[in-house]
Amino acid sequence: MKNKGILFVMSGPSGTGKGTICAKLLENKENDVFLSVSSTTREIRKDEIDGVTYNYTTVDKFKNMIDNGEMLEYAVYSGNYYGTPKKAVENILDEGRNVLLEIEPQGALKVKAIFPEAVLMFIVPPSMKELKKRLAERGRETDEQIKERLEAARWEFEQARKYNYIFVNDSLDECVSEIEETMRGKVQAKSLVDKLLTEQYL
Amino acid sequence: MKNKGILFVMSGPSGTGKGTICAKLLENKENDVFLSVSSTTREIRKDEIDGVTYNYTTVDKFKNMIDNGEMLEYAVYSGNYYGTPKKAVENILDEGRNVLLEIEPQGALKVKAIFPEAVLMFIVPPSMKELKKRLAERGRETDEQIKERLEAARWEFEQARKYNYIFVNDSLDECVSEIEETMRGKVQAKSLVDKLLTEQYL
Repeated sequence: MKNKGILFVMSGPSGTGKGTICAKLLENKENDVFLSVSSTTREIRKDEIDGVTYNYTTVDKFKNMIDNGEMLEYAVYSGNYYGTPKKAVENILDEGRNVLLEIEPQGALKVKAIFPEAVLMFIVPPSMKELKKRLAERGRETDEQIKERLEAARWEFEQARKYNYIFVNDSLDECVSEIEETMRGKVQAKSLVDKLLTEQYL
Repeated sequence: MKNKGILFVMSGPSGTGKGTICAKLLENKENDVFLSVSSTTREIRKDEIDGVTYNYTTVDKFKNMIDNGEMLEYAVYSGNYYGTPKKAVENILDEGRNVLLEIEPQGALKVKAIFPEAVLMFIVPPSMKELKKRLAERGRETDEQIKERLEAARWEFEQARKYNYIFVNDSLDECVSEIEETMRGKVQAKSLVDKLLTEQYL
C-alpha cells in the first residue's frame, strides 16, 4: 500500500500575495507538490483538455456535488461555477503525491474539518498599512471595496490562530523559502512516521 | 485587554522522552512557558502549598469536575485523583503567559478540541527498535508490558499526523533546541497577528 501524500492549504486575506506564493511553490519541482484539477460548468475552450485543464460538467451535476458535500470549495464567476472536488484531491493524495490548495480564509478551516491531517498555512502582511497599500496598488477594487477587504482581514487574522503555520510576506523570496523549508520538514516527518508504522520491531 | 498566551501540548508514545524534554523546556526561562497547577484529592504534605504545588480538593468535587467537563485530563494513582482543570490553564493564558502541558496521546487531541488554538507537538523515537530499547532500559515495565507499549505506539503514531509538529528525539539537546525554535516562531507569529489586530489603518 502506498503512503498518502500531504494536503497543504494556503490561505490569507486578499492582497497578502498568496496567489503569487502558490505559483512559486508549484513552479519549483523540488517541492513535489501539485494542484488538483478543478471542476467547472463553463464550456471547454480550444486547447483545453477535459480532465487536465478542468473537469467540465453541467450546472445540475455541479449543484448536486455541492448538495452532497463533494465540493471542498466553489465560486461563481460570470455565471459559471468553479470548484475543487474532494475526490480530485483524494485521488492525488492516494497516489502518494502532495497537494497544494489556495483557498479563501472562510473555506480553509472547512477543508481542515474534512481533511484533519491537512497542513494549513496562513500568509499575513507585515502591517495593516502595507496591506492597504498593496490592495490600492493592485487597483482591482474601489476605495469602498478596499475598506471592506481591510475589515474582512480583521476577522481573518483572528482565524489565523487556528492555522498550523503563519508566514509573514515581507520579502517574497524569503517568505517562499521559509514555506518550502516548512513543507520539506512536514514531508520528512511524515516519511518517518510512515516508516515507524511499517517497521518490524518484535 | 491583554493578549492571550499560547497553549503548547507535548505528547508522544511512552518512552520517547517527552517528560525529560518538558522538564528542559520549563527549566529554560527564556522559553517563557509555564506549567498549570494540577488538582489532586490526596492529602497535602508538609512543605506543600495549596494553589501552588497542587489545588487540593475532595473526591466528590473532583468527580463533579470530571462530570462537568472541567478536567482537561486526569488519572488515578494509588487511589488518588490527579488532573488538569481547564480553568487553571485558562487563567494563565488570560494573563498572557504561555502554558506547557504534557499529555498522553489519548488526551492530547481532546485538548485541541477544547482549545482549538493549542499547538500540539508530538515526539517520536528515531526507530521502533530504539523505542523498544529505551523502554527496556527504563526498566519500569515487564516484557509483556513493553510489548503492549509498542502496540499502543502504533496507534499513537497514526494520531501523530493530526498534530501540528512532529519532532524526532534522536539527540535530546538537538530535539529541545528545535522545539524551542518552533515555540519562539509561534510566539512571534502570534505577536504579529495581535499587532495586526490592534493596528490603526484607516
